[in-house]
Amino acid sequence: MPASPIRKLVPYADEAKRQGKKIYHLNIGQPDIETPRPMIDAVRHADIKVLEYSHSAGFPSYREKLVDYYKRNNIEVTADDMLITTGGSEAISFGLYSCLDAGDEIIIPEPFYANYNGFAIAGDVNVKAIPSSVENNFALPPISEFEKMITPKTKAVMICNPNNPTGYLYAKEEIQALRDLVLKHDLFLFADEVYREFCYDDRTHHSVLEEEGIDEHAVLIDSVSKRYSACGARVGALVSRNKDVISTAMKFAQARLSPPTFAQIAAEASLDLPSDYFDEVKHEYVARRDLLVDALSQIDGVICPRPGGAFYTTVRLPVDDADKFCQWMLESFSLDNQTVMMAPASGFYATPDMGHDEVRIAYVLEKDELRQATECLARGLEEYPGRKE
Amino acid sequence: MPASPIRKLVPYADEAKRQGKKIYHLNIGQPDIETPRPMIDAVRHADIKVLEYSHSAGFPSYREKLVDYYKRNNIEVTADDMLITTGGSEAISFGLYSCLDAGDEIIIPEPFYANYNGFAIAGDVNVKAIPSSVENNFALPPISEFEKMITPKTKAVMICNPNNPTGYLYAKEEIQALRDLVLKHDLFLFADEVYREFCYDDRTHHSVLEEEGIDEHAVLIDSVSKRYSACGARVGALVSRNKDVISTAMKFAQARLSPPTFAQIAAEASLDLPSDYFDEVKHEYVARRDLLVDALSQIDGVICPRPGGAFYTTVRLPVDDADKFCQWMLESFSLDNQTVMMAPASGFYATPDMGHDEVRIAYVLEKDELRQATECLARGLEEYPGRKE
Repeated sequence: MPASPIRKLVPYADEAKRQGKKIYHLNIGQPDIETPRPMIDAVRHADIKVLEYSHSAGFPSYREKLVDYYKRNNIEVTADDMLITTGGSEAISFGLYSCLDAGDEIIIPEPFYANYNGFAIAGDVNVKAIPSSVENNFALPPISEFEKMITPKTKAVMICNPNNPTGYLYAKEEIQALRDLVLKHDLFLFADEVYREFCYDDRTHHSVLEEEGIDEHAVLIDSVSKRYSACGARVGALVSRNKDVISTAMKFAQARLSPPTFAQIAAEASLDLPSDYFDEVKHEYVARRDLLVDALSQIDGVICPRPGGAFYTTVRLPVDDADKFCQWMLESFSLDNQTVMMAPASGFYATPDMGHDEVRIAYVLEKDELRQATECLARGLEEYPGRKE
Repeated sequence: MPASPIRKLVPYADEAKRQGKKIYHLNIGQPDIETPRPMIDAVRHADIKVLEYSHSAGFPSYREKLVDYYKRNNIEVTADDMLITTGGSEAISFGLYSCLDAGDEIIIPEPFYANYNGFAIAGDVNVKAIPSSVENNFALPPISEFEKMITPKTKAVMICNPNNPTGYLYAKEEIQALRDLVLKHDLFLFADEVYREFCYDDRTHHSVLEEEGIDEHAVLIDSVSKRYSACGARVGALVSRNKDVISTAMKFAQARLSPPTFAQIAAEASLDLPSDYFDEVKHEYVARRDLLVDALSQIDGVICPRPGGAFYTTVRLPVDDADKFCQWMLESFSLDNQTVMMAPASGFYATPDMGHDEVRIAYVLEKDELRQATECLARGLEEYPGRKE
């Protein structure tokens, strides 16, 4: 299994720390927003005598409340259409292993979340990547490109919406084009929608489960990690109206017994948060995004899309090699004893040599820190010996 | 993937409940012992602002404290020799997937914990079972039987010690015989030791990691679920001195990001429990075991070993078919409107037709309940139409 695009840089970050530099971490997807207090308090106040296994599909009470949550998001499902998983990670693996056999193929637009590769490799599933492009804001590649890629082994298409690592928010029309594609070729359509709430500029999220006629095809990956800044909870969900998918995934769920009990208590409490909870969070992320994109766009040779969702943007930099540049920023550069850590985008591409001049930047720092981080990055680009004109 | 031996009976248990019967649950491995209060309190009092991902290998502080825990159990390991997993379940799957490729074989004495099969199937690993026998208290089968089973595809041997479902506690000499076997044939030796503390009659547990000369072979599966009656925590560990095993497993660990944070707080607190914590727990289980075994041994035709550990015993009953008998007990039998649910042992055997007259009984009820349950079972055996003489 390949090392993740972030971990490759860890030794250089350690070196920067040894040199006493402050590192602005724009490389990770761990939000700095506080976990909502009612989630933590629910766990603190839970009256637990015996910390028992939960139902393998997750607390029935939590699944019932999720029915309402999804309904508020225009997704009509029942508690039997979902399995609570140990993070979105387990939802991805249960979904893949339930729908694809060894040797089957899944088509994913690249760049994509690097761990999809890990789960695919573990399940002996082959990922076929179709490039999306920074010039086009990483929009969905033309459907004709998907069709060229389909073989008798192709069983599924997968998207992440809004996207990690690009922040791209797919339009309703793009989801509908994928709907037509999976119907025509009888494929599964996996959608990782863990950033559902993080949609900006008054745009709304359009779920694959809002589409009619693809009940047997659509498989939703979900998680509370990003939504409520609760990455350490490890609570996600696999949601599908396809009964065979859920019953097969349930066998994997039963083998591992149950998702974590404490964290399900926190996750269930999240569903009682006031409906305006995300307003403030979104307001903060939009301000950060705009600060970052405005600053980067002023740098010669940088192409920085203004993403419609999530809290990432994938940026083209005027450098010979983004892996080397990120390493150089940690090892050899500092501005007032500060530097920036980013994720080289090469790790998010399956096709060799793609994304070699791109980085993923996560805007998970508050604005003052983010401003200083972008100043560091701008100066780093000026001084980097491998800068391209 | 096959249904678990317990789940097959769920519809009949539902029927018994509809009939208003009280069911004594001797079928499950969920202890009724209270989770130690300091574990729950550690979570209640944790000062969490952002519920972040933990290290993919688990909290460094927890792993450091586990070094001392293992040392107290005569196991010398470092914090780098272990990965904290999401329950013992994930330790099993990470262990299997790190050591065996698709098509490889693992030899396991049967009856064995049914979910080993699930994880093996998910990893395309073939389980080769060697029967152990109730007449022999389910001791380790002769090494010659293992040798007959070894092929070029054989990569590992696995035991559970003390054993689920038999309660058998392997003697030091049996572990040493396995050590010689895996050295001779260059195999991995997996030991699921999650019941380590549950050893009775002044016998001590002998870990595979206490054996010298098999550092590259021995892989330990561990969990806090049974030890501290904390099944819902989902915290386990994969422990090995083989650096390649740990570094390969670490890639699986990184793909799923981290084990659950709340539960690691509880697990870490468990290591501060007073050293006599298990004395009372063991005293209780020994009393239950003796009550159960003494009562069952008086029934004509029953063969009931007195296990040396865990909280299970696998029992031969004078019935035509234990699956049918267990179903009949739920559907058609009651004593004072009460009945007993057990796990038919057939589900713990890989070889067809093995264990068809055996059940696994978990002594996880307090003594008064257990006494009534055994009375129910005795009467049920008298009345069951398929009784064998």
